[in-house]
Amino acid sequence: VSGPAPRGPAGPRTVKRHNRALILGHLIEAPLTRAQLAQITGLTRATASSLVDELIAGALLVEHAATRGERGRPANPVALNPDGPVGLGVEINVDYISACIVDLTGAVRRHRSVPVDARTVAPEAGLALAAGLAVDVLAEAAGLGLRAHGAGLALPGIVDAGGLLRRAPNLPEWHDLAVGTRFGALMAEHGLPLVTVENEANLAALAELWFGAGRRHDFVRVSAEIGVGAGVVLGAELFRGVRGYAGELGHVVVDPDGPRCACGNRGCLEPLAGQDALLAATGLTDSDALVARAAAGDRRTLAAIEAAGQALGVALAGVINLIDVPEVVLGGLYARLEPWLRAPIEVELAARVLSRPWAPLTVSASALSADAAVRGAAGAVVQQVLRPTVH
Amino acid sequence: VSGPAPRGPAGPRTVKRHNRALILGHLIEAPLTRAQLAQITGLTRATASSLVDELIAGALLVEHAATRGERGRPANPVALNPDGPVGLGVEINVDYISACIVDLTGAVRRHRSVPVDARTVAPEAGLALAAGLAVDVLAEAAGLGLRAHGAGLALPGIVDAGGLLRRAPNLPEWHDLAVGTRFGALMAEHGLPLVTVENEANLAALAELWFGAGRRHDFVRVSAEIGVGAGVVLGAELFRGVRGYAGELGHVVVDPDGPRCACGNRGCLEPLAGQDALLAATGLTDSDALVARAAAGDRRTLAAIEAAGQALGVALAGVINLIDVPEVVLGGLYARLEPWLRAPIEVELAARVLSRPWAPLTVSASALSADAAVRGAAGAVVQQVLRPTVH
Repeated sequence: VSGPAPRGPAGPRTVKRHNRALILGHLIEAPLTRAQLAQITGLTRATASSLVDELIAGALLVEHAATRGERGRPANPVALNPDGPVGLGVEINVDYISACIVDLTGAVRRHRSVPVDARTVAPEAGLALAAGLAVDVLAEAAGLGLRAHGAGLALPGIVDAGGLLRRAPNLPEWHDLAVGTRFGALMAEHGLPLVTVENEANLAALAELWFGAGRRHDFVRVSAEIGVGAGVVLGAELFRGVRGYAGELGHVVVDPDGPRCACGNRGCLEPLAGQDALLAATGLTDSDALVARAAAGDRRTLAAIEAAGQALGVALAGVINLIDVPEVVLGGLYARLEPWLRAPIEVELAARVLSRPWAPLTVSASALSADAAVRGAAGAVVQQVLRPTVH
Repeated sequence: VSGPAPRGPAGPRTVKRHNRALILGHLIEAPLTRAQLAQITGLTRATASSLVDELIAGALLVEHAATRGERGRPANPVALNPDGPVGLGVEINVDYISACIVDLTGAVRRHRSVPVDARTVAPEAGLALAAGLAVDVLAEAAGLGLRAHGAGLALPGIVDAGGLLRRAPNLPEWHDLAVGTRFGALMAEHGLPLVTVENEANLAALAELWFGAGRRHDFVRVSAEIGVGAGVVLGAELFRGVRGYAGELGHVVVDPDGPRCACGNRGCLEPLAGQDALLAATGLTDSDALVARAAAGDRRTLAAIEAAGQALGVALAGVINLIDVPEVVLGGLYARLEPWLRAPIEVELAARVLSRPWAPLTVSASALSADAAVRGAAGAVVQQVLRPTVH
């Protein structure tokens, strides 16, 4: 109905920030001439032109040659500058560490991933390893003439707004860890601010928003690795909840008499539909084998996937009844299992979502590969360049 | 991390609307002098003073006499005007219709409620009855010199953003009904715009935000009447979900082997913790008796309340794991049962909410009586006067 009272006074600087973000927002979609920008944004041509000039001077935009000659005023399209400031993304996960460079246009310019069993590495050493990989990738970027604006870090656990890693269920040693401060110090040695430290499922959801197919603005992205992670995007923003702990889909109750969960309770989704549950039910040891067996039509594998899909469907019906989000995106292992997982999920959604008869729902597989989280971490830096806080 | 691109250009008018909302927002808290307003808002004294003068001319503010003499410039506090535009709230529920008048200060100036069994009344006749009651209350308000700015309507069902009542589980005849258009036409006959048509649980949650104790900005309000309704407020805004169907807590799965629900499924919260479930489990016929028996320590009643509390706790743990909201407010019958209901809810929350060890949660009873929804409907009108959209 109405929002909270605004916090501070507005003035000319607010207007300029707003209009600058407006121009950059349109250029994320496609290159445009100054005249087109004025028309689309509703700004005067003089204002649009002067903001564009400032953004070119700041290396955020680049001017292209006009595709056909025009008379009078030059009408060269301007576009986001692929050689402007870039974002560094870093991910520490249970069994690998990765880093990548994403430019203003969203392109991945460099990417590296190394297998590391983080369960056997002390947090301090793990952070140092990640920083080392980041420095390698930064050096490669420098070789391309790219300078990073900042870094983002993805972690497989619950991170608060201050960059404190509260708990990483699958990395028992990684808890109550001031990752923001510690990794921030390692990045500061290289002159880079740490823009975000965030749960990997949340950053994967943001990567879906920024780089995924279909220009989705409202969805829940659910993925299975060792645990079950979810990120919710509403109105093109990550839904973090009041204290940043939203989206813990893995621990929503599906069956109070179900198996015991790593969190200490019974009935959570995770032990019913996580990777370990699928492997245990099929007697397999890795997810590649799981996908291969499903593709070969193995009955036991298909039954296990169907049971997981049913549990996922019950949990997702709860999400949709509570949050009313029109799209479910399956990521990670779930994306690979989508051909068999989608039907049982859709059966539960059709039966259990109250608004289902009149509010369409789609379930689809993410087109992003397994690097969604680290791309999201780099993307958060790029977004900070393109969309500094409007208020 | 960052928001969506702004939609239109900003200019001087944006600034003025923003600053006007800023001033009114502070005056909702307490009367202030022009100088205090300038200081708190960061506006110049001249700007603050001129905006205040405009708001006084528009009857939104009223100037009080200074409490003590001051030298130099007058320093009279200004306050929201209780005789300025008021909001009309109307509620159609399963067994009553009510209407009320709320002024800019949030005070209920008139309130009427009449018992009507809406299950036996055709929707068209029900809307006409409600409009008749509204007209009576408007006439009483006119007698006090109060003029309504608009009307808000609360309904016991799922309402979309366009004012279409999709379904009211306990009023089978009330479905696919263009209530916004039809009730809007009835109000237009009296010159009143219909500002909002909204689910009663959502409006009750907004009433909690605007008029409840404790200045809560982030909470889920859950109440039991015949069904179980919930409204979620985040950042002082109603959380409606993408299409307005959020908050359907009553149909979140608590136990897949549980009793059948009115929605057609098994395992929903509603048949485990709604008023009918409590009455059936205790053999009682009304909620007053239920409260009296509980207060008298009747074992069967206490056991039924504990079972309902446990189911509620499982469902609320899911809400908090997904949405991360720090406060649960019990309304309606649940507020009256709070002395017995709170403990079993808290046991489930402590066990099942992943962030529980570091993110405090409180469960409390609403201080608003049964008229929360109709006050919320009137409050939505008042908010439209005080806080017209800032963007």
